[in-house]
Amino acid sequence: MTVHEDRIEALRERLELLDVQALVVAPGPDLRYLTGYDALPLERPTLLIIAREAAPAIVAPRLERARVEHEVLVADIGVHTYSEHDDALALAGRVIGAPEGSRIALGDQMWTLFTLGLQRALPGRRWSSASELLAPLRAVKDAEELARLAAVGRAIDGVHQRVPDVLRAGRTEREVARDLASMIREEHDQVSFVIVAAGPNSASPHHEPGERVIEHGDAVVVDIGGTLEGYCSDMTRTYAVGHAPDGYADAYAALIASQAAGVAAVRPGATTGDVDAAARDVLVAAGLGEAFVHRTGHGIGLETHEAPWILAGSDVVLEEGMTFSVEPGFYLEGRFGARIEDIVAVDRDGVVPLNVVDRGLVVV
Amino acid sequence: MTVHEDRIEALRERLELLDVQALVVAPGPDLRYLTGYDALPLERPTLLIIAREAAPAIVAPRLERARVEHEVLVADIGVHTYSEHDDALALAGRVIGAPEGSRIALGDQMWTLFTLGLQRALPGRRWSSASELLAPLRAVKDAEELARLAAVGRAIDGVHQRVPDVLRAGRTEREVARDLASMIREEHDQVSFVIVAAGPNSASPHHEPGERVIEHGDAVVVDIGGTLEGYCSDMTRTYAVGHAPDGYADAYAALIASQAAGVAAVRPGATTGDVDAAARDVLVAAGLGEAFVHRTGHGIGLETHEAPWILAGSDVVLEEGMTFSVEPGFYLEGRFGARIEDIVAVDRDGVVPLNVVDRGLVVV
Repeated sequence: MTVHEDRIEALRERLELLDVQALVVAPGPDLRYLTGYDALPLERPTLLIIAREAAPAIVAPRLERARVEHEVLVADIGVHTYSEHDDALALAGRVIGAPEGSRIALGDQMWTLFTLGLQRALPGRRWSSASELLAPLRAVKDAEELARLAAVGRAIDGVHQRVPDVLRAGRTEREVARDLASMIREEHDQVSFVIVAAGPNSASPHHEPGERVIEHGDAVVVDIGGTLEGYCSDMTRTYAVGHAPDGYADAYAALIASQAAGVAAVRPGATTGDVDAAARDVLVAAGLGEAFVHRTGHGIGLETHEAPWILAGSDVVLEEGMTFSVEPGFYLEGRFGARIEDIVAVDRDGVVPLNVVDRGLVVV
Repeated sequence: MTVHEDRIEALRERLELLDVQALVVAPGPDLRYLTGYDALPLERPTLLIIAREAAPAIVAPRLERARVEHEVLVADIGVHTYSEHDDALALAGRVIGAPEGSRIALGDQMWTLFTLGLQRALPGRRWSSASELLAPLRAVKDAEELARLAAVGRAIDGVHQRVPDVLRAGRTEREVARDLASMIREEHDQVSFVIVAAGPNSASPHHEPGERVIEHGDAVVVDIGGTLEGYCSDMTRTYAVGHAPDGYADAYAALIASQAAGVAAVRPGATTGDVDAAARDVLVAAGLGEAFVHRTGHGIGLETHEAPWILAGSDVVLEEGMTFSVEPGFYLEGRFGARIEDIVAVDRDGVVPLNVVDRGLVVV
């Protein structure tokens, strides 16, 4: 069996276990994971249907039949195509064929347009999220996935090492971001995102790079990522231009300790809540608990953000092969912020960091 | 009022007209159209809520509050933020506040994960697609949108004029596609897609560029697009390497005539079905009706594909300011295919082409 057929088989077992009659996923990471097919997310639906009592099937526009046959790496899949005037969602409803009262799981990122059409085509069914089926499978990476995540981790490490070449006073955030996008592209297949947040903007965790001119004495959060062979990188370092702002050094030292404590807590059998607590406790002790406004991390793989979520109180148990970010930060509105983010993999014995560039404040 | 406030006002009138209590849209083109905010489409929901009986509101993660306040160009919007442990969709449900039995419209591309959560939070409501509210507004472009579409149209014209520099026998589709992506990037903010379909692959309308080596005598369909200041380009030309394949010249001549007939049918008051018929009739008369397997075109703006759809039998009436593709093609499996695609705008007196590069078969 191919890796994709193995995944579908594992999914079928979970359909039984969770009493779900059928799973429907649309173009995006779920479809790539289950079939290898990187379909276009367009208004003509492409839907993969894994039902308990039938062979896997895919509903796709007739004009994409050649792509489906070439790129879907699952033997014996039923291919159902439709033409421009056919009701694609009624067709999908017939292929799903789950009886009234049964439960159908839908891909989290499927367009609502298609969900509303399926709900019309199949009244009286119970609808639930596909992630309770898929997330536990996708969260544990196989050897090939781990190798790809390691490779894309090295790629983004390389970009961060070159940040000092382009980050300097007098340039705008946007200019720096444009240069970083080019550098990411050199090492990846695609750029996923570029955050360059300078001075007071560094207190906004998801700041969009803008026209602010970087000044001497600014802290600058640089959070960047791309994809390579389908797998994602995501890495943050914080820089200081000329020198760190007043009052920054102690907070930043606590952040380094927090991030290291989070990573040190990673091992099979620990929970995601343990990892969050390890990182959070250090910042709380330093008086920065209120300034750490987000969770400690997120899984990564075919998506930049996926399960497991490294969240306070969460009792998801870490398993060998899980990969996620450990990225505590502090954000003091009107003043400054900082974040340090590495991707790590859970190993048999503990943790393997997939980013290794020094975590100290880099003065440029 | 800002342009975004005007759009929300126009939308409110349509809520009344169509008896919809509230509209909910997520990050993507609908949100950009209504607020200017180019939010991240992530697992933490950002939802814009336009209800009939309340001011506009946005639900967003606390860590994105600064971005929301800076980038949402709508005065007096209510901003409701949530923290990592809050139930964001329950919060959104309270903000929507539509009574049981009322109708709520959801953005077409909103993630199903959020739709299922809203349906749980608000049982007994009727759910419908936001496109019946938004599509007619978004389909008619204002002067600034038309200027941006003209600019991005010129950009992709420029890329097609340089295709002969990189398309030649001995190279793979993928190599040519990579070079075209770089050329698109030079003229755009982002690359949307690159189709390079050579030889028999040209018979697959949405072919993904692969390892096929381009040969002397291949027909090659090149369909490319990008975005510039948020607006999309999308343009197809067909090339022949060395010479056209046997039996190609007559079919291609019919295709040129078909595309010209489609464009000539564009004027205010005509229907989208009229445009489709004008293009289709020429190919049917040439014996290629069965080989023209898709609609004649699609609207374009903030999305590559949006309303209006240029579809056989459709009675949507063209209005000044609508912009869409006219892109007939023929596809003969195992042999070859071809497509010619331009974007056009409906003018007061007829049609303005936004792509102008010669439509003849370019022999490279």
